[in-house]
Order: sequence, then structure tokens, then C-alpha cells
Amino acid sequence: MKVSRRDLLAGAAGVVALGATAAAQSQETPADPTKVRGRPSRALGQRAPAEKPLRQPRGQTSSGTPHQDLCGTITPADLHFERHHGGAPDIEPKNYGLLIHGMVERPMMFTLADLKRFPAVSRVHFLECSGNFGGRGAATDLTPQQIAGLTSTSEWTGVPVATLFREVGVRPQAKWFLAEGGDAAVLTRSIPVAKALDDALIAYGQNGEAIRPEQGYPARLFLPGWEGNANVKWIRRIELSDRPFMTREETSKYTEPMADGTARSFSFLMDARSLITYPAYPVTLTRGWVEINGIAWTGSGKIERVDVSTDGGATWTAARLQDPVLPKAHTRFRHLWNWTGGEAVIMSRAVDETGYVQPTREMLIKMRGLSSIGYHINPITGWRIGQDGAVAYHAEPWS
Amino acid sequence: MKVSRRDLLAGAAGVVALGATAAAQSQETPADPTKVRGRPSRALGQRAPAEKPLRQPRGQTSSGTPHQDLCGTITPADLHFERHHGGAPDIEPKNYGLLIHGMVERPMMFTLADLKRFPAVSRVHFLECSGNFGGRGAATDLTPQQIAGLTSTSEWTGVPVATLFREVGVRPQAKWFLAEGGDAAVLTRSIPVAKALDDALIAYGQNGEAIRPEQGYPARLFLPGWEGNANVKWIRRIELSDRPFMTREETSKYTEPMADGTARSFSFLMDARSLITYPAYPVTLTRGWVEINGIAWTGSGKIERVDVSTDGGATWTAARLQDPVLPKAHTRFRHLWNWTGGEAVIMSRAVDETGYVQPTREMLIKMRGLSSIGYHINPITGWRIGQDGAVAYHAEPWS
Repeated sequence: MKVSRRDLLAGAAGVVALGATAAAQSQETPADPTKVRGRPSRALGQRAPAEKPLRQPRGQTSSGTPHQDLCGTITPADLHFERHHGGAPDIEPKNYGLLIHGMVERPMMFTLADLKRFPAVSRVHFLECSGNFGGRGAATDLTPQQIAGLTSTSEWTGVPVATLFREVGVRPQAKWFLAEGGDAAVLTRSIPVAKALDDALIAYGQNGEAIRPEQGYPARLFLPGWEGNANVKWIRRIELSDRPFMTREETSKYTEPMADGTARSFSFLMDARSLITYPAYPVTLTRGWVEINGIAWTGSGKIERVDVSTDGGATWTAARLQDPVLPKAHTRFRHLWNWTGGEAVIMSRAVDETGYVQPTREMLIKMRGLSSIGYHINPITGWRIGQDGAVAYHAEPWS
Repeated sequence: MKVSRRDLLAGAAGVVALGATAAAQSQETPADPTKVRGRPSRALGQRAPAEKPLRQPRGQTSSGTPHQDLCGTITPADLHFERHHGGAPDIEPKNYGLLIHGMVERPMMFTLADLKRFPAVSRVHFLECSGNFGGRGAATDLTPQQIAGLTSTSEWTGVPVATLFREVGVRPQAKWFLAEGGDAAVLTRSIPVAKALDDALIAYGQNGEAIRPEQGYPARLFLPGWEGNANVKWIRRIELSDRPFMTREETSKYTEPMADGTARSFSFLMDARSLITYPAYPVTLTRGWVEINGIAWTGSGKIERVDVSTDGGATWTAARLQDPVLPKAHTRFRHLWNWTGGEAVIMSRAVDETGYVQPTREMLIKMRGLSSIGYHINPITGWRIGQDGAVAYHAEPWS
């Protein structure tokens, strides 16, 4: 990278000479942009032509965030993961209503304007699908997006559910509420009233603007730190009760059989997890200093520490955490490593403020049994660096 | 808003009946979305059809953020304000290079890949054009976007300039550096080395993804809290020197004549300011509780307090600040107010952690003189609510 003033002048001349050819080839990117008037101001920005981050649809019902292309903690709204059971509906905001009824003093219907009139809060939180693990097979050509694309972080704005519950007068014996979506699946989940009184929102804003259709426009339930499907999108009805409703999505789905033959249900909490997003497949490293970095998150509050191993888990070193470390939000970690050549396996392990430590694959299998491996899979994962610097997913057997 | 179960069932039937007509009118938003399969997952999300936030171009060289449409602190990247002097260039990332030379031990050219290899930081900061005040005339039909659209907040990711300065070996006598952009204007500014060693970045990331073309793709100088134009976009050259370079943009432009006939130059710091974004023109209020809210920011660090007045500045009450309050970033403030009818003027006043208080228009004119009113105009501004609830900009005379 070292250059002399002479090199520079020669280089600059070279660029100008190249300019004539390259400009003829491309209208979009002139070789010497200082010689061409740039684009006038416009009403909406667009990405640079060379940058094409995309979600990766899996079938028709989900698509994941391209973590390998991202470098911060906020997920751009058009790259936030999606997961739905009947497609993403388009809802006319003026037709929208949220009914709250059941064990309440005053059943009420709230329009979108009603919801926006209440005092609001804005909070940065991750949202993660409980089925967010794509690394159980033998494939090694998997990206961070394929391993854990179903988690994203946004600044959510909305009205606390607690405020609405005071408005309708929730009765003391009401301990659960049904949340019902206005999509073709009419997805329903039972949620404890305690969560509503803690930190749940009816969210209508995402990264400062209106929530996007796939994330529940015009309004969704948001339960910080709890599994994605319980955060019912396009929410149209809340019914208060003294017991859970035992809906399809919490009986036939979203429960986990355990190693002892019992089943775990209402397993809302998303436990701590981390993911190295660089270096990762399909990067090829060159020797020298590399900043290993990635994201860590936990439904239990703040990330306390992220350990990084560059020897396949034999030894661990605490990474630097990017400030501010916010509760229930993606936290970026960074760790400088000098790759001198030779094979290596790099891994990360999240520890949260409750002391919870992200488990190994073996610990998960021992605790949960193999049959259960579908939801809430948060094992330590790694990337294998080859002699040639090629990075691949470090696949390990699950059966 | 109060409803009975019977009303609800009748209402639901009504919606279904309406559905047949409305669905025939619109492919986009079926009247009953539960009866129509939704959209399959897709690679990039889009806004809901009913939501159309747009920047507002002023001539060809700038466009402002629609603050009246936003509800959090992060500005979506395609709504971040733009300001350029020769249009926004499209730069091919593989052709990009940043030269650092002058009073250094080892002049070096950094490719984009070189820059990304250094340890990075991500920080949420506002960026504001020093010419960000559109409220000097008599017009009252002005939106928050027109009053102060040239400020936005993003999570910026990049390499500290201090890291690069260590790499090239900046000499002790070097106290200033020239920053030169690669656009058609080849915009240049002189920046103190002390700022580089404090918190300046060469930023390549914005809200988690690659920086957008209008914000300096593939890399820009970012000087937290300092006037926008000094944050040179598309940066291609940094030259170290023992004195400022006295470029066009710091002699004929971006200086402020003062009331005593002298001129203030190198006025980098953006002082504390606030803006009520709701209620604001063109909203019409209905009587009852209103959450007055808006954004406040300061180049000096954190916002300490935002006062709100609902009687034209006669009395003030501290608003609630949305956590986390981050340094040199938009901070949302909220204040509940019961509008019982009748005319009122609402205003906000920011106070930062240094004790600086956002000035009145009169104080600014007294200090700076009328001739200077072009840059660094941060007066307390207000909105007038009419008898009928119509909200208009509270214009006050500047001459």
C-alpha cells in the first residue's frame, strides 16, 4: 500500500486514461467521477449498483437476513427476516382495528389513529424465529444467512400493551390473553398478562417509519426477547382469559419434546446466542490480521460477554463489545486475530447478564434429545478456515 | 371506541359485505385479508402502499428528511438527507482508493478492502447540514421537513481516522488535514488533526449496510457532531499539514459574518437544537390528550433535557427523553398535553450536557447580526394551533 508522490501522479494519469474506456462501457459508474456531473437530488435513495444485499426466501413462508453483508446492529427494514403462515397480507390502514375484549371492564376497538394517540415508546430489540437454525446437516457451503438468518434488529415504536390494558380495565383474574392476527392464517397465540405488563408493545413503527407489511403492518404485537411467532403480526384481536387458549400454534407446533419424553410448551424465551458474521462462508482469507466479528443476542436482557475461540473451542478469549450494549438487541462483538496460515476453526460463545452460557451442540442434544431438534436451537457454531484461506461452515453431526 | 360483543359480530359481517366491493376496486388491499392468501416471501421488502415517506428535493443539490413521517431516532437510509455540490457520483468500489500523504512518515493508498480490514467501530450519530434552517420567511405552511429536514441519524460503521494516522505515521507538527472528495465538485475542507484523534471515522457502513451513494459511497469522512459539509463524502485524499488550507468551502462559503463585522470561520460544531415533529403542519388536532413529540440533538455530546412550552414560551416543562440517550445522536422527547381547544403555540428547547441552551431567535440575531443568517441557525421554533385544531408553522420576523 506504500506509495510515493510520483507513483500517485502516474496513477492518477492512469485512471484518467482508463476513464475514457470504462465510461464508454458503463453509464452507471464513470471511471473518473470528478469529470462527470453527478446525480441530482431525488425523493428516495437507492443502494449503490455494486451492493446487492438480499433476503433469501426458503419456500414461500420465510426469508432470512443476509448477516454476512451487514456490519452494524440495525437491520435495514427491507432486509428484516420474514416468516408467515398464510402469506403477508396487505392491509388498508383505515380499515384496521384492534379489538380488546374478554375479561375486561370495557371491551374496546382501537383504530390505528387511536393507537397512535397514546404515549409511545421506541426501543431497539431483536426479533428471532424459534426455528432459526439451519446448520444441522453435513453441508459446509452455508452462509451466516443460512445458519441464522431468522433474527433481525430494529428500533420498534409503539404503545405499551399495559397502557391499553389499563384503558379497557383488565380484570384481576385475567392471567392470559389470546393474540389473533388478521392474516389468512389467522394465527393465534396465548400470552401471559405478566408479559404485557412488563414490556410488550403494540408496535406500528420500525426503524423510524411505518412497520413494513411482512413485519405486521399496520400494527403487531411485540414481545421483547420472546420467540417470533408469539409476536403476532397484523394483530386484530386480544381476548383476556384466566387460562391459555391451547391454540394450534402452541399444541401441534411451537412446543419441544424433551429427552425424557415430556414436552416443553410455552417456551417463549429466546436464549443467548452468537454468530460470527466475518469471516464466514464464502469468504477467502489472506494472511495477517483479521477482525473476527459478529452479533450476539439474548432474550434475557443484555449480553454480558462474548468469547471467541480460534482453536475449535479449546481456548477462549473475551471479545470487545460494541457500545451501547442494549437489552434484548443484537450486540456486535469484535476480536482481532492474526491468521498466520494453516487450518483453524473459529467459534463464538455468548454469555448473558443472567449468567446463561450459550451451549454446545452436545449439551443441547443431551438436554433436549434428538427428536426435539426443531425449535430453540442455539448451539455454539463455527467456521473452518482451510490452508488456502477458504472459509466453510464447521458442520458437526446431529445424529 | 366502546363496543359490545353484538356490535363486533355485526361489524365483522359488515366488513365482509364491504369486502366484495373493495376487493374489486383494489388488488393491493383486500377488505378482508383473512380470506385471501398473502404475498409469498421475497428477497427485498417494500413499504406498504399507503405509506409514502419521501425526501423533498430543493433544487438539484439537496433533499430533506420527512421528520413529520418518522417516529423513532434512526432515519431509514433512503430518507437520509442529501447535500452535494456537484451531484452524487456513482463510484465503482474496486476503483476506489484513499490516499493519505503530506506530513506523514509513509504516504499510503488504501483500497476499500484495506479500510475494511482494520478494526471497525459502529456508532449512532446525527449528521446535519449547517444550512439546516428553512423557517426565516413569513410562510406558515411549512412542515418539519422544510424547517429542519437536513439532519438525519444513522448507525455509522467505519475505521477510526486515528488508526489510519498511526498507520501512515503522522508527524507531530501536522495539526490540520485536507479532506478531498471524489465527486465532480472535488469538495475540500481543512480539519484539525485533534478531531481525527478524537472520534473521526472513515465510514463505509450506514444502518448496517454499505453507505448509500448520496451519503458518500463507498467511503466518507465522518466527524461526529460537526457540520455536514466538513464530513467529506466520497473521500479520496487526505493531506496532512501544519496549517489549514483555506479552501473555497471555508473562505467564500461556510463562514459566518458576525454582528461586530468580523467573520467566524471553522465553525464546525453543530449546537443543540430541537424540533417538534408532532403535532406539526399539516396536522389537524382533535381535542383531548396529545403526545407532543420530536427530536433533539447536539454536537457537544448528550442531550441533557428538552423543555416544552404550550403557551408560546411563557412557561416550560421538561419532556421525557426516550432511552437510550446517545451522544451526538437524535434523541426523541415526548410530552403529554391536554388540548382543550383554543389557540396555542407549542415550542421545544434543547439543553445539552455542557449546559448550552438552544437560543431564541432574538438571541441569535443579537449575537450574530442579521446579515449572517445563513449557517448555524438553531433557534427555538414553534407550531401554532388554531381554534379549529389546524397546526401551522409559527413564523416570526427575522428582519
